Order: sequence, then C-alpha cells, then structure tokens
Amino acid sequence: MVRPLGLPFDPIERAGQTWEERFGPAAAMRAATSVFRVQQILLARFDEVLRPLELTFARYEVLVLLTFSRTGELPLKVIGSRLMVHPTSVTNAIDRLVAAGYVDRRPNPADGRGVLAGITRAGRDVVERGTRALTELDFGLGELGDRELETLFDVLRRVRLGAGDVSGAEN
Amino acid sequence: MVRPLGLPFDPIERAGQTWEERFGPAAAMRAATSVFRVQQILLARFDEVLRPLELTFARYEVLVLLTFSRTGELPLKVIGSRLMVHPTSVTNAIDRLVAAGYVDRRPNPADGRGVLAGITRAGRDVVERGTRALTELDFGLGELGDRELETLFDVLRRVRLGAGDVSGAEN
Repeated sequence: MVRPLGLPFDPIERAGQTWEERFGPAAAMRAATSVFRVQQILLARFDEVLRPLELTFARYEVLVLLTFSRTGELPLKVIGSRLMVHPTSVTNAIDRLVAAGYVDRRPNPADGRGVLAGITRAGRDVVERGTRALTELDFGLGELGDRELETLFDVLRRVRLGAGDVSGAEN
Repeated sequence: MVRPLGLPFDPIERAGQTWEERFGPAAAMRAATSVFRVQQILLARFDEVLRPLELTFARYEVLVLLTFSRTGELPLKVIGSRLMVHPTSVTNAIDRLVAAGYVDRRPNPADGRGVLAGITRAGRDVVERGTRALTELDFGLGELGDRELETLFDVLRRVRLGAGDVSGAEN
C-alpha cells in the first residue's frame, strides 16, 4: 500500500490556494498535480498485489499483451509501441520475465535484427493470477463508480488524442 | 514533446475491448491505464519546457515549495512530505539544485540530524521563468476546459482521499 500521507490538510488544495495568490488561476496546476499523485498511488497499489507473484505492473502489462496476441509471441518493438514505453524499458522487462521463466526470447525470423518474446505456460498462469488480483483491487480505483470511471477515461482521452496517440480516422 | 504514438487505433480502447472479451468489465482498467499514459505525456511536456532552464519538473516543484515558505527555507523531510516523494528523491533533487546554484543547504539548528534547504536569488529567478513556461503550456492540459479541469481534479481527489492523503477534519 502507498504510505498514507495523513496530512492535516490537502497538499494539492493548499498548493492551489498559494498558487492563486501568487501566480493566478490554478485549475490546470491542481489537475495536473493530481494526475501525478494518483499515478503514484495506483502504481503502489498494483505493485503491492503483484509482488507475491514476482511481478511489477510494467512486467504484468507485457505478459497481458502477449496473451492478447494470437500466437503468444510479439516483436519487442511492437510491445514497446503498444505499451507506450521506451525500448530500453521493454528490454529490461523482458530480461526479468525471462529470468522468472514467464517469457522465452528468440530471434525474429521476419526481421534480421529483431527479437520475438513469447509467453510460457508459467507466464500464462501468472497472468491469470495477476489479473484476478488486480480485478479484485478494482485496478486501484475502488473509490470511483462506473460513471466516474467513464468520465475519467473520457477527459484523459482528450489529452491522449491531443498528444498524438492516435492518428487514425477514428480520432 | 512526448513522441506521438500515431497509432491507427487507440491502444487503450483496443486493450479494453480485448479485456472485456477475455476477462470482463474493463472500465477501471481503461481509466487506470489512461492515468498512467497521461502522466507520461504531462511529464514529457513539462520537462521539455523546463529543459532550457536546466530544471526537471521534480526540481521545479521543490523550488516552488521553497518560494511558498515564509523564509525561503524548509527542512528536507518537510519537502518530501509536501511533495509526496521519497526522501532519496528529495536528496537527489536538492543535490542537483545546489549544483545549479538554485538552492543552498545547511544543518537544521532545530533538528540535530536534519538539513535545511534554502532558495537562492538565482533559484527565485528560475522559478519565475519556469512558472511562466508552465502557465503558457496550461500545465500540459491545454486540451481541457475549466469544467473538465475541475472534474478531473474532483474525481482524482476521491482516490487521493481514499489513499489517506488527508487525515484532517476537512476530509
């Protein structure tokens, strides 16, 4: 669990008040700071329930993506692009997953310098257990009802689209 | 700027669809994944406009907090608790700020083992420039209007309160 701050006041509210006195409107600052804090809270919650499975959330995401692929195998560069993370982070996650026996790695016959990662039987088992743990945890968002979850997704989607995450016609 | 993914589909929507087929309701997963992605986008946007000032967002936050204090000085442990970050991260940020000439460090006379960080004149100047840059950037949330910013803050606040960020009577 993330360490409860247990402050006698809301640190973001307080920063917002001071900001308004000093600099002007604080709505964007308060919202952005909240995104940072909640990301921290969620990560701590996820890692806590995944730790007994010897997984971090980042590595769990890689395994889920592999189970979603038809063959259970994906090129490392596809994993990076789907999970929106840096190639170095993907390589690091794959190294740890290989060491844990959850993933196998082999050269990609379709790409001379490329590498394929494939999920193992043990990997499929641990994904199921991780998914159960995260689902029971409501993905760290148990404080929110269905409408709030939709609202959160919709508002954040505008930022994601603005950053160019999607170039397709559906955007 | 964060590298635009430019995918022909929304990767979180797609993951949500597959999730629903395989595991069930995906609203919490989609919202949580969106928080992670937007945090990444905001961090990239902030660091981009702060880089010319030789600041990261984490170090900018430390400087802002110091300008908010009456004397321009704060104990390192107070900085960590207000910014909701680990003591090691605070020490690291202070080291870099001292090296850049934005902060001075001295033993805390009121706490035998404690350390005080104080903002310098150059630190106050760079905070002003950083604040101008971030304000012009709408804190990375230019895609959102005032009502959406409020909604985002309010929804995320429920998660922060649920995590025990505030223990006071106002909670």
